[in-house]
Amino acid sequence: MTSSRHLVLSMDTGIDDALALAYLIASGARIDGVSATYGNVLQQQAESNTKAVLDVLGATDIPVKAGARHPSWARWFVADAGCARFHGRNGLGDLQMNGERARGGTWRANAPVTPAAKPGIVTASTDDGLVELSAQDIADLTRHGHAVSVGGYPVGDAHAELPTIPEFFTQDTFATSEKLGFPDEDCSTMTDGAALIVDAARTYGRDLTIVATGPLTDVDTALKADPRAVGRARIVCMGGALTQEGNCYDLVCETNMLQDPEAADRVLRSTADTTMVGLDVTHRCLLGAADVSHWLTACADTSDASAANGGHHTDARNPRHIAFMLASIANFSIRANRMSDPVFAAGMPLHDPLAAAVALEPDLVTTFDIPMIVETRTGDGTGVRGRTIGDPRAMLDDATPTHVALGVDGAGFVRRFTDTIAGFLASLR
Amino acid sequence: MTSSRHLVLSMDTGIDDALALAYLIASGARIDGVSATYGNVLQQQAESNTKAVLDVLGATDIPVKAGARHPSWARWFVADAGCARFHGRNGLGDLQMNGERARGGTWRANAPVTPAAKPGIVTASTDDGLVELSAQDIADLTRHGHAVSVGGYPVGDAHAELPTIPEFFTQDTFATSEKLGFPDEDCSTMTDGAALIVDAARTYGRDLTIVATGPLTDVDTALKADPRAVGRARIVCMGGALTQEGNCYDLVCETNMLQDPEAADRVLRSTADTTMVGLDVTHRCLLGAADVSHWLTACADTSDASAANGGHHTDARNPRHIAFMLASIANFSIRANRMSDPVFAAGMPLHDPLAAAVALEPDLVTTFDIPMIVETRTGDGTGVRGRTIGDPRAMLDDATPTHVALGVDGAGFVRRFTDTIAGFLASLR
Repeated sequence: MTSSRHLVLSMDTGIDDALALAYLIASGARIDGVSATYGNVLQQQAESNTKAVLDVLGATDIPVKAGARHPSWARWFVADAGCARFHGRNGLGDLQMNGERARGGTWRANAPVTPAAKPGIVTASTDDGLVELSAQDIADLTRHGHAVSVGGYPVGDAHAELPTIPEFFTQDTFATSEKLGFPDEDCSTMTDGAALIVDAARTYGRDLTIVATGPLTDVDTALKADPRAVGRARIVCMGGALTQEGNCYDLVCETNMLQDPEAADRVLRSTADTTMVGLDVTHRCLLGAADVSHWLTACADTSDASAANGGHHTDARNPRHIAFMLASIANFSIRANRMSDPVFAAGMPLHDPLAAAVALEPDLVTTFDIPMIVETRTGDGTGVRGRTIGDPRAMLDDATPTHVALGVDGAGFVRRFTDTIAGFLASLR
Repeated sequence: MTSSRHLVLSMDTGIDDALALAYLIASGARIDGVSATYGNVLQQQAESNTKAVLDVLGATDIPVKAGARHPSWARWFVADAGCARFHGRNGLGDLQMNGERARGGTWRANAPVTPAAKPGIVTASTDDGLVELSAQDIADLTRHGHAVSVGGYPVGDAHAELPTIPEFFTQDTFATSEKLGFPDEDCSTMTDGAALIVDAARTYGRDLTIVATGPLTDVDTALKADPRAVGRARIVCMGGALTQEGNCYDLVCETNMLQDPEAADRVLRSTADTTMVGLDVTHRCLLGAADVSHWLTACADTSDASAANGGHHTDARNPRHIAFMLASIANFSIRANRMSDPVFAAGMPLHDPLAAAVALEPDLVTTFDIPMIVETRTGDGTGVRGRTIGDPRAMLDDATPTHVALGVDGAGFVRRFTDTIAGFLASLR
């Protein structure tokens, strides 16, 4: 039974990562730890969000470690405006929460880890923590050949939009991504999160599944640290697109893969048993507002009193709090997706929950086995930086194929997802 | 038995189209006619090549009609330099031949349909025939909003290289593809080739398979002329790439699809039963020089005398001539591919022969059913002009899926292909 396997997670905890966590816990999965990484949000925010969500879910025993704070190709990372649109400024649909309020029954302010935007200043995450950068700082960094990632795009690329420094892009003196050329320098560093993955791989060997719902930087670092041990684990990653358009500006790339194409390329080319759960399938699993409302009704007869004033669930798992949190963040994403594209009129794509579910039950998707690469350069003869595609050199060789999920019963999975959460909530009454 | 079906072909007869013709005839396929279209070469050259190849193959009873001379988005078409590199200036590896020499046993000069390149002048094909265009003519056309296709790229695009007018591209006053904007004007016109397809569809209904090994302009025109009749036929097209890199400069697009993205998009979105045989599978079927040598040995004991001086095969099918023609053109392509990319060290991809074979035997490939589109605009939110990709709007609908070939026994098909040709040659002795 696959669900008896051990799991370690690498998450850039925004909304769908949080829903994936809830699904795994509702399914009784054995989670040995979470590495919180940059991606949808800064690493520091992802860590705060992961802890807050686990706290509400009554799973504070799961260790949360600090994963990568930047991609392997840049020492500075800035979260981009698009992520805030889909996940909220704090990554959880602007829902304000912390551990205390969950226990106390009130939802208190838990500010985003970054201060409110100051004109001319952006907050970047580095190995040493958060730093504030001015336009001049960024200009100096790029002039010295250092890359700064803005949601996967290097400063100098027209899509690397620093919202608080619009004037930056009216200048054409800065390095473009072509000029920058992504130097071979590998900026990845060992983190507690990557160490968590390595330790779990050494302990559980083939019984470990690594679930990555953000950039693959953590997994790549772990693979580099101990290729033999980590290479034995099963890897399930949410990311990429093979038969469908991407969700980046160019409609070629998918956001998780774009964040760190070099790391993703190394992971997909490794001999590990890797399953790619990308937009090919996640765009078919749309969670709508009506689905979400089931969660609220699942605990509707839990009295306000028991929830708010120290009833028997308050110290552990409060179904009303859980339902409120999950419904709030899901509805934020449902609204954001509906506004972004008519394709999502029916709801938010369950990207990370589907990957998490596939980690437990591989048969939820049908896969196409093909050796995959992630292109790292844009241009004639090189492809599109961040694109996930079959390895042309491997077509005639025996390269390790990636299991690319191409088929899914979308409506069936949405039902399973909502029912699993609703059943979990009902069990807590 | 599928091979009892009727076939009509739309071919831009270069080398692999000629090999596909040979395979079909060697397989005893029922070919009701060929529409010769622009693509690898000008339409006029494709028509001349098709007739010459059918003549050598002893199949002069198959009607050859003039298909599209330009894509649906441009009234002027210029063959590009890349095609000449892979197919020779005359599209048949610079092998000089005509019907007479095949019968007489000598290979006489048969000049390309276009005169040798004159500096500052390119030859374009239009509905009215061949025209010579100067840089000034091209500038005037683009300035008036008319598109000129250079192997699929509109003049103004950096890849639309007019080899005889290099200075054209040092000027930046001409319209770019963005400025040109591919006006909605549909330039496609009814042709004898498209009429051939319509007539066959009306006559044979569901028993017709349309095999397109070039741009889909002919098929699109036929579908527009009689959607009901042509929509009942099965369509097998060589083109596109879904899980592998493309073979255009950008590594996103495949050349046949790039020639006429609008037409291809309409065909793939139609309700016709369409199979896409693209680079996903054709790049696994590499014909090497050793395979080709089988053909020469298959008729090695046919005496020179019988071949050259009126032996019993001379008036119909001369196996030595056929073997010489097929080996010559195949070896040209094998060399050109080997020089182009290490991926093709083992041989030339059997693009068109595989599509032709799939028309006869669908089970040669495994397919993935997915509603497909061809993107027609390049840019943020629009994708890449010429890319074949899943239809995002259809994921939740009941759009007609295209059967996209993703699996093939490459070595097995190469063996079948060479054996079929060798067996055909042996049967003529």
